[in-house]
Amino acid sequence: MTDLFKDVPVIKYEGPRSKNPFSFKQYNPDELIGGKTMKEHLRFAMAYWHTMTATGTDPFGVGTAIRPYEYTTNPLKLAEIRVKAAFEFMEKLGIEYFCFHDCDIAPQGANLAEFRKNLDKIVPMIKEKMKETDIKCLWGTANVFGHPRYVHGASTSPNFDALAFAGAQVKKALEITKELGGANYVFWGGREGYETLLNTNMGLELDNMGRFLNAAADYAEEIEFRPTFLIEPKPKEPTKHQYDFDAATAMGFLRKYGLDKRNFKLNIEANHATLAGHTFQHELATSRINGMLGSIDANQGDPNLGWDTDQFPTDVYNTTLCMYEVLKNGGLHSGGLNFDAKVRRGSFTPEDLFLAHIAGMDAFAKGLRVAYRLLEDRVLEDFVDKRYASFTTGIGAEYVEGKIGLAELEAYALEKGEVTNVSGRQELLETIVNDYIYEN
Amino acid sequence: MTDLFKDVPVIKYEGPRSKNPFSFKQYNPDELIGGKTMKEHLRFAMAYWHTMTATGTDPFGVGTAIRPYEYTTNPLKLAEIRVKAAFEFMEKLGIEYFCFHDCDIAPQGANLAEFRKNLDKIVPMIKEKMKETDIKCLWGTANVFGHPRYVHGASTSPNFDALAFAGAQVKKALEITKELGGANYVFWGGREGYETLLNTNMGLELDNMGRFLNAAADYAEEIEFRPTFLIEPKPKEPTKHQYDFDAATAMGFLRKYGLDKRNFKLNIEANHATLAGHTFQHELATSRINGMLGSIDANQGDPNLGWDTDQFPTDVYNTTLCMYEVLKNGGLHSGGLNFDAKVRRGSFTPEDLFLAHIAGMDAFAKGLRVAYRLLEDRVLEDFVDKRYASFTTGIGAEYVEGKIGLAELEAYALEKGEVTNVSGRQELLETIVNDYIYEN
Amino acid sequence: MTDLFKDVPVIKYEGPRSKNPFSFKQYNPDELIGGKTMKEHLRFAMAYWHTMTATGTDPFGVGTAIRPYEYTTNPLKLAEIRVKAAFEFMEKLGIEYFCFHDCDIAPQGANLAEFRKNLDKIVPMIKEKMKETDIKCLWGTANVFGHPRYVHGASTSPNFDALAFAGAQVKKALEITKELGGANYVFWGGREGYETLLNTNMGLELDNMGRFLNAAADYAEEIEFRPTFLIEPKPKEPTKHQYDFDAATAMGFLRKYGLDKRNFKLNIEANHATLAGHTFQHELATSRINGMLGSIDANQGDPNLGWDTDQFPTDVYNTTLCMYEVLKNGGLHSGGLNFDAKVRRGSFTPEDLFLAHIAGMDAFAKGLRVAYRLLEDRVLEDFVDKRYASFTTGIGAEYVEGKIGLAELEAYALEKGEVTNVSGRQELLETIVNDYIYEN
Amino acid sequence: MTDLFKDVPVIKYEGPRSKNPFSFKQYNPDELIGGKTMKEHLRFAMAYWHTMTATGTDPFGVGTAIRPYEYTTNPLKLAEIRVKAAFEFMEKLGIEYFCFHDCDIAPQGANLAEFRKNLDKIVPMIKEKMKETDIKCLWGTANVFGHPRYVHGASTSPNFDALAFAGAQVKKALEITKELGGANYVFWGGREGYETLLNTNMGLELDNMGRFLNAAADYAEEIEFRPTFLIEPKPKEPTKHQYDFDAATAMGFLRKYGLDKRNFKLNIEANHATLAGHTFQHELATSRINGMLGSIDANQGDPNLGWDTDQFPTDVYNTTLCMYEVLKNGGLHSGGLNFDAKVRRGSFTPEDLFLAHIAGMDAFAKGLRVAYRLLEDRVLEDFVDKRYASFTTGIGAEYVEGKIGLAELEAYALEKGEVTNVSGRQELLETIVNDYIYEN
Repeated sequence: MTDLFKDVPVIKYEGPRSKNPFSFKQYNPDELIGGKTMKEHLRFAMAYWHTMTATGTDPFGVGTAIRPYEYTTNPLKLAEIRVKAAFEFMEKLGIEYFCFHDCDIAPQGANLAEFRKNLDKIVPMIKEKMKETDIKCLWGTANVFGHPRYVHGASTSPNFDALAFAGAQVKKALEITKELGGANYVFWGGREGYETLLNTNMGLELDNMGRFLNAAADYAEEIEFRPTFLIEPKPKEPTKHQYDFDAATAMGFLRKYGLDKRNFKLNIEANHATLAGHTFQHELATSRINGMLGSIDANQGDPNLGWDTDQFPTDVYNTTLCMYEVLKNGGLHSGGLNFDAKVRRGSFTPEDLFLAHIAGMDAFAKGLRVAYRLLEDRVLEDFVDKRYASFTTGIGAEYVEGKIGLAELEAYALEKGEVTNVSGRQELLETIVNDYIYEN
Repeated sequence: MTDLFKDVPVIKYEGPRSKNPFSFKQYNPDELIGGKTMKEHLRFAMAYWHTMTATGTDPFGVGTAIRPYEYTTNPLKLAEIRVKAAFEFMEKLGIEYFCFHDCDIAPQGANLAEFRKNLDKIVPMIKEKMKETDIKCLWGTANVFGHPRYVHGASTSPNFDALAFAGAQVKKALEITKELGGANYVFWGGREGYETLLNTNMGLELDNMGRFLNAAADYAEEIEFRPTFLIEPKPKEPTKHQYDFDAATAMGFLRKYGLDKRNFKLNIEANHATLAGHTFQHELATSRINGMLGSIDANQGDPNLGWDTDQFPTDVYNTTLCMYEVLKNGGLHSGGLNFDAKVRRGSFTPEDLFLAHIAGMDAFAKGLRVAYRLLEDRVLEDFVDKRYASFTTGIGAEYVEGKIGLAELEAYALEKGEVTNVSGRQELLETIVNDYIYEN
Repeated sequence: MTDLFKDVPVIKYEGPRSKNPFSFKQYNPDELIGGKTMKEHLRFAMAYWHTMTATGTDPFGVGTAIRPYEYTTNPLKLAEIRVKAAFEFMEKLGIEYFCFHDCDIAPQGANLAEFRKNLDKIVPMIKEKMKETDIKCLWGTANVFGHPRYVHGASTSPNFDALAFAGAQVKKALEITKELGGANYVFWGGREGYETLLNTNMGLELDNMGRFLNAAADYAEEIEFRPTFLIEPKPKEPTKHQYDFDAATAMGFLRKYGLDKRNFKLNIEANHATLAGHTFQHELATSRINGMLGSIDANQGDPNLGWDTDQFPTDVYNTTLCMYEVLKNGGLHSGGLNFDAKVRRGSFTPEDLFLAHIAGMDAFAKGLRVAYRLLEDRVLEDFVDKRYASFTTGIGAEYVEGKIGLAELEAYALEKGEVTNVSGRQELLETIVNDYIYEN
Repeated sequence: MTDLFKDVPVIKYEGPRSKNPFSFKQYNPDELIGGKTMKEHLRFAMAYWHTMTATGTDPFGVGTAIRPYEYTTNPLKLAEIRVKAAFEFMEKLGIEYFCFHDCDIAPQGANLAEFRKNLDKIVPMIKEKMKETDIKCLWGTANVFGHPRYVHGASTSPNFDALAFAGAQVKKALEITKELGGANYVFWGGREGYETLLNTNMGLELDNMGRFLNAAADYAEEIEFRPTFLIEPKPKEPTKHQYDFDAATAMGFLRKYGLDKRNFKLNIEANHATLAGHTFQHELATSRINGMLGSIDANQGDPNLGWDTDQFPTDVYNTTLCMYEVLKNGGLHSGGLNFDAKVRRGSFTPEDLFLAHIAGMDAFAKGLRVAYRLLEDRVLEDFVDKRYASFTTGIGAEYVEGKIGLAELEAYALEKGEVTNVSGRQELLETIVNDYIYEN
């Protein structure tokens, strides 16, 4: 292992009473929870962009991040250092997966050809590190939103040239992700939306996006790359309106363009859920019941702020209910929990990168424990089953089988008389979740 | 005509310089705009619930409405008076359509049987008034959200009995709407959602809702009633989460349950759009490009308030962009502009009902004029066509035809070099819309 | 004790592992925390309106609450039953305080004189119950927002007659609250705001409100009643804009009208804080550092909903940070934790009232434990002290003493050279709070 | 005049029917409105940062702006070019004022001393241009939020060194603004707030901010500079919570620290108002009735987006109601309408800078016309006067004089009987505003 983070030790589990900030209090990677280790359940991934390349800028200020190991400004050298830093970082934390955009790992150069050349230099280096460390690629993607050429969109640009450029980038990113053994390939449509309908042909743009994703799936087939494709919904920001608004919208889109049959699933991000007016659990559950829960971007937003704050996930309610959905989903399958989270601008030291990941990993480990026990004890499950019991027998069951029409419903209602309901007991259920958090 | 609103005259068009509050300044019903009269374009409808039965309560206060003509508290007598008031009101304003819930027009009585009896008394009375006045029914619906039996939902209740009761109400409402010649039948799922996922089987609830709507369509066929069915999206309120969140979500739902093939379309409400984080135009355009724009609930919300304020629509930007979408839709077809709007609690006199409708009708008449001129002059259309011109010839056109894959895009991009974009000119387009508002 | 809630036992502390829903898992009233019992720290109060008189209506549906003990519809009889129910309820839960509006405890009758007569019948009955049970009045208030006469405001009505009526109600409410030994008197300005500035003289309205509160303080002096007066900030709802928007606004108002010198403080409500775009802790801390934290309305809102949901407080982060501020405030003094919270509309049984209060009381008991330990261990305190240490010595200390001007700052900066900052460690601090929640 | 914007002519008024995008349709600078020219009423200012130095970056993408005249990357040369561009730009548009931060006009260099040297080179150049063109400085300010040294705040930093550096910058900025004859000096506290209360001593920070502003006022006196000082409220962004949340909060702060007596007023920005949950008009009116309306940052936000979009103001409702408040304020006095607005990232050409300003200037010119006519015709004024008439005679007038206590109110109410209110007529007033917009 390199020694770029020289003041930070390998992070170990020391249990809940440890006062050592550089230790896990909850995350005990090899502990068995229901026959699987914690690390198998959680499949944590590092986000290359936030952890390796972000600098702490915001719309009102320049970068604040202090990264002593970045001793050069030569872009390619810097990319190489970051590869070393990334793998040392993951090893020290015991993170076994990473996620990346093309431009995170290699400089874009002056033109497309240079960018490709730079990628071809860095990818083998990453591959070697992967072999050394047994760290794997969770997913790859192409950044087709940051460059000025994508100012009006990539696959939804009104300018065919921009779309073509995006196609070239996605082609290369598919190739790289295959090369790195990525299990998934992600599409986040950062500029696939509009600023104003006054200048927008929304119908054509959506059709073009559908064509583009089909072309990507075609190409993957061609090169015998078979990842799970993941659409990542977000309602807005940077655009005023982003087409993949939320899980329901994205699934409707996938169905309309036949992509639901081409192994497209969803990558659900907590902060994107809340920006869309949903809870994180809502988006997870919506995806799950449609067989579409592919992977998770683990972070949290601030309910008082209207933009994507991408904070490290420390709210145990969110991590508990997330893991509850994951367990009901039979696990994350080829997906994982990717920390698409950035340290606050005021947390600018390399140590903060570790402390923030520890915070997130501990919060998810705790959430896993609590969720597992809730499910094992069937605390909520039994309540819900009983609540819907009228649909499991008699005319209720027949209704579920599709045998009952309005006339039968009317006849039944007229005879039955007024309805008697049972309390939903929301407050009781909330306090039970609290009890499980305190006691597990 | 009765004389219940005795201080209010028949409202006439007096032109923009009139200072008479009881006149139209913009709405000139028989004026031709592009070969159709204004009233044919706008198809205004009165919402029976807000205008006839609402009292001005809010969560912190009791009703304030003063309706001198409501001299009795006998529910059936009151219902009869309101029929008279409704038709006098519509005649005086020249409104040619109305919309209703079952319980708006007749008292619910002590049980389902009584409710049906009451409906059977009132419906013929309405039918006669319709004949007298030539006023038509735009749409009917059943209120399956207000009664305690629907506390946990109607078609998505965990209690089959509640679902059955809803079925009985919808069956009757379909029959009545047919009887009254309604062109559309609406479903607004006020309680079709959840308060907390802790006690909810979302998958079963959505499936049950799908079955319910199919059963309704089956029954309509059975009685040879062929309305356009309309789903009315709303993201929340009264429930924490409502299943028909927005247009995209509702269309996804309709497709999943095969209802898109059974003449289901959308009824878009301005205030519901903004509660979902969209503009009104976004929801209209989303529906339009999918062939799903069925009808419109014309109102407006308050961007600083987080609930459904259902204000009368007076913002000319909203009415202009709404009519712009309507004109691009080839008109409203069987739909209309229903004033699902309530006078403010402080606007409690009968005169306010008229003044508020005049405000809304004038705002939409102005919007129609402006939108029509914008389209006729092709101000935005030409800009947009030019902006997307690269998709009409050469490789761009081939892309639209589905002939171009990632490899071709890459080859093109590598040869082409850096992309040149053209400004989106948002500020210019916004000022042009202003110019058209001031000058039309 | 009466036996109106006959299926519910006296609620006892059974510890965290109890599975009995009708027991406290965290709230152990007589347990000592830092030399004071839990009940002395927490001073829980029942809100008469939500718990005794609310019915579960919402803007889209009628009441759902089932209260078998309310066997009559005679308003005065009903008021008497509710007195019995209230005290039985509080005794069973061990709640030692209650809060009320005038119209919660007695029917308003046909006019002001009748209302006063009804109050004069009920108040002695309450007084006797108080003697019997040793339960005390935390605060009283007058409801001057629900009646149509207050449609445009009470002390800020454009109609002097409405203001006069409010004056009469407040006078009587002050007398009753004195009679019941109330420690505080609350003003929540539900209609003290505006719907539209187009018809509003905001300057006159604010001045009138200032005069009104001074008149109330004058009258209290006159009758030798010396409560803490409490303004309860809320930004909106029912009005579009409410004048007591938040803590900072209310304090500015109090200062402008000289009320800060007449023992006016603030009653901070969690859900009002979030509607104003603040955290609960922000509003508490803002009040505390200005010596203005008077009392607390303990509830929580839903971050995805834009109205006052008044949910029972179960989020342990909120209760922990609330109690952290309370402890730093040296306790609640004459104030308390009033459950201004309503059971969900779907939680309609009498048992739900108990379960919801248990949920809230346990969440606050846990919050108290955690906050106390955080403070005792000086976990955050030491971090903060060190962070601001530059203001305790040298030129920093002189600055705090007001001795340093811009010229000295410039001289210092020019000599000092570039600034070195220290990380804010937000993620570490958040995970420490988690650790304390899990371990206390 | 230079010729950096060589394709853009001097912009002239051509009237509402002109189709020339490079002309004013509404803004006729020398037209008299009520005895003052339009330009005297509107006092438009260019914001140096958005128009001269911004590049079109956003959190997800790099700059897009194309500025052909910026032929160099030498910072000081660039600053000189921008001076020329700024004055040519203002001359071509007939904008007579500009606003600036210290770092907009000169490069910051490697340290404070260099920054000062750079400023001393550029300021004389600006001064000369001002003489040439008769363009004036509306206000100056120091940017104490963008640099990493201000990561935790400037005057509210936990680090005294950062505060000292800010003091040095403000001292110099006061000197420069004096040198340029600035009528006002602005404080926007971009980092004066907090990210989390867990690491924050809010009381000390606010006291330090109070001391800092007093020190600034002291220094201005010392150098005989007597501007109006302007606090610019904003609720959040970049910080989670900004101390100058809104007008009411800022006024409370000014009063607490005695700054209200030192010629501090408010600079109200439209988009900051809406981020705080207020309308633009609310913040203007709140400032006005407290004698605190100093100047205006003219822009608009997007009601569906939760961040500061700083769009050019094109909504005629906002400009009308803004100018309504300005006229009631007796004009802007030493303040102006500063276009703190940026072209959309997709409007990246130099022409867009002109088109966007034309859009904003025309929208405000129209707003001025409409507001002036509304006031001259006393349309709203008469309605409001009548609405509050009960406070101008009899006991109502006595109340306003402070002569009436609760006992008198009670006596009056008991005798008077139930209150009769008058409708607030919101819908009528809204449609009247529409009529005035269409007809003026």
